[in-house]
Amino acid sequence: MAYQNSPSSDDAPTADLPGSRQSNALSIPLSEHDVSRASNAFERMLLRKLLKLAGSPPLRFELWDGASVKLENQLTQFTLTLRDPKALMQLLANPNLAFGDLYSSGRLEVTGDLPELMILLYRSTHSARDNWPRWLERLWANHAPRSTGLSEARENIHHHYDLGNEFYQMWLDTEAMQYTCAYYESDDLTLEQAQLAKLEHVCRKLRLKPGQTVVEAGCGWGGLARYMARHYGVKVHAYNISREQLAYARAEAKRQQLDHLIDYIEDDYRNISGQYDAFVSVGMLEHVGKSHYADMSDVISRALKPEGLALLHSIGRNRPMQMNAWIEKRIFPGAYPPSIAEFMTLCENGGFSVLDVENLRLHYAHTLEDWLKRFEAHSAEVSAMYDEHFTRAWRMYLAGSIAAFHASSLQLFQVVFAHGENNSVPRNRKHLYDKPAAPEAL
Amino acid sequence: MAYQNSPSSDDAPTADLPGSRQSNALSIPLSEHDVSRASNAFERMLLRKLLKLAGSPPLRFELWDGASVKLENQLTQFTLTLRDPKALMQLLANPNLAFGDLYSSGRLEVTGDLPELMILLYRSTHSARDNWPRWLERLWANHAPRSTGLSEARENIHHHYDLGNEFYQMWLDTEAMQYTCAYYESDDLTLEQAQLAKLEHVCRKLRLKPGQTVVEAGCGWGGLARYMARHYGVKVHAYNISREQLAYARAEAKRQQLDHLIDYIEDDYRNISGQYDAFVSVGMLEHVGKSHYADMSDVISRALKPEGLALLHSIGRNRPMQMNAWIEKRIFPGAYPPSIAEFMTLCENGGFSVLDVENLRLHYAHTLEDWLKRFEAHSAEVSAMYDEHFTRAWRMYLAGSIAAFHASSLQLFQVVFAHGENNSVPRNRKHLYDKPAAPEAL
Repeated sequence: MAYQNSPSSDDAPTADLPGSRQSNALSIPLSEHDVSRASNAFERMLLRKLLKLAGSPPLRFELWDGASVKLENQLTQFTLTLRDPKALMQLLANPNLAFGDLYSSGRLEVTGDLPELMILLYRSTHSARDNWPRWLERLWANHAPRSTGLSEARENIHHHYDLGNEFYQMWLDTEAMQYTCAYYESDDLTLEQAQLAKLEHVCRKLRLKPGQTVVEAGCGWGGLARYMARHYGVKVHAYNISREQLAYARAEAKRQQLDHLIDYIEDDYRNISGQYDAFVSVGMLEHVGKSHYADMSDVISRALKPEGLALLHSIGRNRPMQMNAWIEKRIFPGAYPPSIAEFMTLCENGGFSVLDVENLRLHYAHTLEDWLKRFEAHSAEVSAMYDEHFTRAWRMYLAGSIAAFHASSLQLFQVVFAHGENNSVPRNRKHLYDKPAAPEAL
Repeated sequence: MAYQNSPSSDDAPTADLPGSRQSNALSIPLSEHDVSRASNAFERMLLRKLLKLAGSPPLRFELWDGASVKLENQLTQFTLTLRDPKALMQLLANPNLAFGDLYSSGRLEVTGDLPELMILLYRSTHSARDNWPRWLERLWANHAPRSTGLSEARENIHHHYDLGNEFYQMWLDTEAMQYTCAYYESDDLTLEQAQLAKLEHVCRKLRLKPGQTVVEAGCGWGGLARYMARHYGVKVHAYNISREQLAYARAEAKRQQLDHLIDYIEDDYRNISGQYDAFVSVGMLEHVGKSHYADMSDVISRALKPEGLALLHSIGRNRPMQMNAWIEKRIFPGAYPPSIAEFMTLCENGGFSVLDVENLRLHYAHTLEDWLKRFEAHSAEVSAMYDEHFTRAWRMYLAGSIAAFHASSLQLFQVVFAHGENNSVPRNRKHLYDKPAAPEAL
């Protein structure tokens, strides 16, 4: 098992990173967890302040001593139980980070549907935060997001994607091991159909033809590369820096007798060489980091043939915003989803002409709902494989992501572009819809 | 005839504005036009320098004294004749502005196909200008583009759109009087079919349903409003500040018995009131000006119902760039096509979620080719109506625009967006392509 903890760069006394096999012990002095003392009026007043800052969502807190805290005249739909006094103080000190950590360690419990609660919190906070004082925004900001330089990128990717292929196989689709937004052409598609539809949709947008060459930046478990090779007869150079993913990708390509068409390369996107008819990257831009968008522009600019088409598929935003601190620290080190204008600036800096942007936001909410269902069906196995803390952290991550896409805090952009001077670009998008992208029931 | 000259804010001794009925006299002292003296070696050297700065396009100059100037070993495809010494100096002093002015006044003549020459010049200059010294960029910049404030906007729009409806009727489509990019679903469509296809494409993107309300900012001669009312049964408030256009729009709506569904309103987009199911603006954003994008965001934000869809259709750029000086001064005062990132920033500032971007660049080149053909067929009438100077200026404008879209200096973006929190947005774009958007041969 390649998984290992990265040291936390945050010196607040927070819980261990999720997935620690070594220990579920908390780094907080035991006295702080003293649950024999009663909660006091000051603590309860601060919690009510927090509820107001969060836009007065319909929830109440239950404290370790049985005390109940809610806003006056507020109907409550959810109960959040805080198990010790320290949990309360941590939540107040930085809810962005502590909410996930406390939930993961079981010191905050939720009664009610977790994704629903998170949608509620996203929505109420979204409008309320405009009124936050600036010092509070600053206090609760993520002060040390991870770098995405060449060597740090390897650590960041290793932290998440090398958790073990067996883990991801428990809840991703069985057809193509896609850990990115699926495309539900119609709402009744299975996860497997919708993921294959996504791959087909991407290939159509790239207008792939047999014999063409494609370079893929960040290929995951190699599903897109195999789909392109099998269904479009193209040759693919697929780059990735996650070893576990590449091992799986290579074995699968061999098993499916596609290895003569695909070269899985263990290297950073910045080291892509050669020129190709298509450049594609699905779910990697989130890990590139704003300070490296110029690298990304340069790479695409030199790797794309004069008449080639490029497609970037990435989580994005309606406006620039820092990544949620807990997600950045515990789940995706270094992650940053660009706003649509930042995304377009990346294209502008490469001298590209943007041809097509599609926003698949609600498809990602649907994808995540499918993932969470499967994850829950395997939660006992996950806990046995890692520990309960890990399982709860991933539950929070998946539920919180469902909520972020539902509440429009996150978007999913597919952007097609070409060199500015390319006049052999597609004239319309009709061919994307000539026949269904999803296969019939598998 | 409502047309009138706006005073030029440029104090260089340039030609009059095109379309002046009063006089075609040039404001240059007659002595400067002295064509009896021979060209000298210095002048010829400067012209060769200019050719190099323009990226060495395959053309030669012929001077008033018969002298020929070209770069060594350069094959030449076009001949540009300069009729007097002052024309040469004006071209050197500011080619961006003087090229159009000298062509309009007949002091610069072109042998060969004008759009082809312009494409060549756009392409060769595009790459060459990266090497220009900064002082030259600054010297040749447009130092006084017109403001687009509330009162100036009226003058700007009056300058162009109130040239007279009979003039535009000579060469625009006869079905809907569209003075914006058409949609050639297939290359063999007539201008009339392609313009109706554009209107249909826009309506489909907005998912219009009978009984809905639509507000249109900048409605031209009202063709889109009438199309929406007739084919989708919606009620339209259509804003415009061009009187000539509104007079035509109202008369047509009455004639077509659609006036109960359409309210053509003579007012600025900033004064739009009410809330609507759809916000649409086709070909107006170019006139809004970057400094007023915040106004535009605000207007759309307050005029669009929570579950409404908005569509902006505008000329744009692959990167920020000043409007060509001649076009801004002589043709479209105050015009500024946004880069795609600037366009997206406008959407971000309104709190919108961008759903769909389509680039129809080559459709605009095709549209302009169709317009130029019809314009040429009526050029004698145009000259009789205005004068030869006007006809040549418009020929240059149309040919230069064909070239700008062909050479990718200009783009055409259709952007669909919604309030960020709107979850009833379309899930895919299949419905745009279920049947042809263009009517069968008219």
